Amino acid sequence: MKLHDYYRSAAAYRVRIALNLKGLPTQHLPHHLRKGEQCAPAYLAMNPQGLVPTLEGEAGEVLTQSLAIIEWLDETHPEPPLLPTDPLRRAKVRAFALAIACDVHPVQNLKVLNRLRELGLAEEKVTEWAAWTNREGLSACEALVRAEKGPFCFGDTPSMADLCLVPQLGNARRFGVNVSAFPRLLRAEAAALAMKAFADAAPDRQADAE
Amino acid sequence: MKLHDYYRSAAAYRVRIALNLKGLPTQHLPHHLRKGEQCAPAYLAMNPQGLVPTLEGEAGEVLTQSLAIIEWLDETHPEPPLLPTDPLRRAKVRAFALAIACDVHPVQNLKVLNRLRELGLAEEKVTEWAAWTNREGLSACEALVRAEKGPFCFGDTPSMADLCLVPQLGNARRFGVNVSAFPRLLRAEAAALAMKAFADAAPDRQADAE
Repeated sequence: MKLHDYYRSAAAYRVRIALNLKGLPTQHLPHHLRKGEQCAPAYLAMNPQGLVPTLEGEAGEVLTQSLAIIEWLDETHPEPPLLPTDPLRRAKVRAFALAIACDVHPVQNLKVLNRLRELGLAEEKVTEWAAWTNREGLSACEALVRAEKGPFCFGDTPSMADLCLVPQLGNARRFGVNVSAFPRLLRAEAAALAMKAFADAAPDRQADAE
Repeated sequence: MKLHDYYRSAAAYRVRIALNLKGLPTQHLPHHLRKGEQCAPAYLAMNPQGLVPTLEGEAGEVLTQSLAIIEWLDETHPEPPLLPTDPLRRAKVRAFALAIACDVHPVQNLKVLNRLRELGLAEEKVTEWAAWTNREGLSACEALVRAEKGPFCFGDTPSMADLCLVPQLGNARRFGVNVSAFPRLLRAEAAALAMKAFADAAPDRQADAE
């Protein structure tokens, strides 16, 4: 498979973890987001949103949107599962993943922060915006898993929830959020990062890392 | 079932359509978002994000995040299906739904627009922000389904993609976006709104509509 990737993209990072957990050999094709490489016509033809990741499957299938890619990987390569089997537990995992993928990440991604800069917002206020988004979203996530035994977000194996959590905590730290306010999330993160599949997917381990 | 709802919420609107399509009788419990009713402690205990919708199932299950709720409804009440059976088609439907649910809706929701107002942005600029978000996201969505025969987004029956599209087109119009630039999306919308399940879910048909 081929993953259109950017080392710093939290959404691409989720898919890198999934591919590693599933043990699927992948060719990484980096697109430098800060240089606008995701807006090249050939890339937009595959991913009209001009976002990473895009996954090209072995039969040439083109898949976009990290959570749709992860669900597809889980349906076509079921081991190890990234979602529980019980419908209610699946819904809990998905709700946690979506709380990050919908309500945190896109509100603080590069495109939105650049838009704030264009509106004349000072750099300090832009960082404050990103920190606020992360703080608020991760506080809710902490509440969603507080009563979960763990050590992962939901149970004793990683799920799609952990695939979203680990990259987002990285972003939160980058924007200066005090993540010690989220002890349950940090416990899940520690369990995840002890696994090679998570560690190898980290931004600073990617070939395009700067 | 009980749906914690707000007539104007695009995310709640998606779930209203799903419940109608599945023919599930539902008690609607409105929370007035503009009055902050979603921040009452009893509600936050169910939905720590303080967002609508929340669905309470018949066994007292609490479900949050509209797409997680829709996937759960589809798994527990499979007829009529809201996702295709083929994994790649499922991924296409999910990617379209996520393009709206992640990259459009949360960037222009009430919380974010209020935050822009707090930063001192003039009302005209706030509307421009919301319009930009809708225009950009819906342009990408148009490209995602341009080659799809339809009349719905993906095929001849409504899917989770249409459940996200119809409410978002409503928002786009509200923010002054020229939606005639999206002819394929408008064709899917027309097919959807001809169905009672969609029509009955519209904001102005809700008991709490103002």
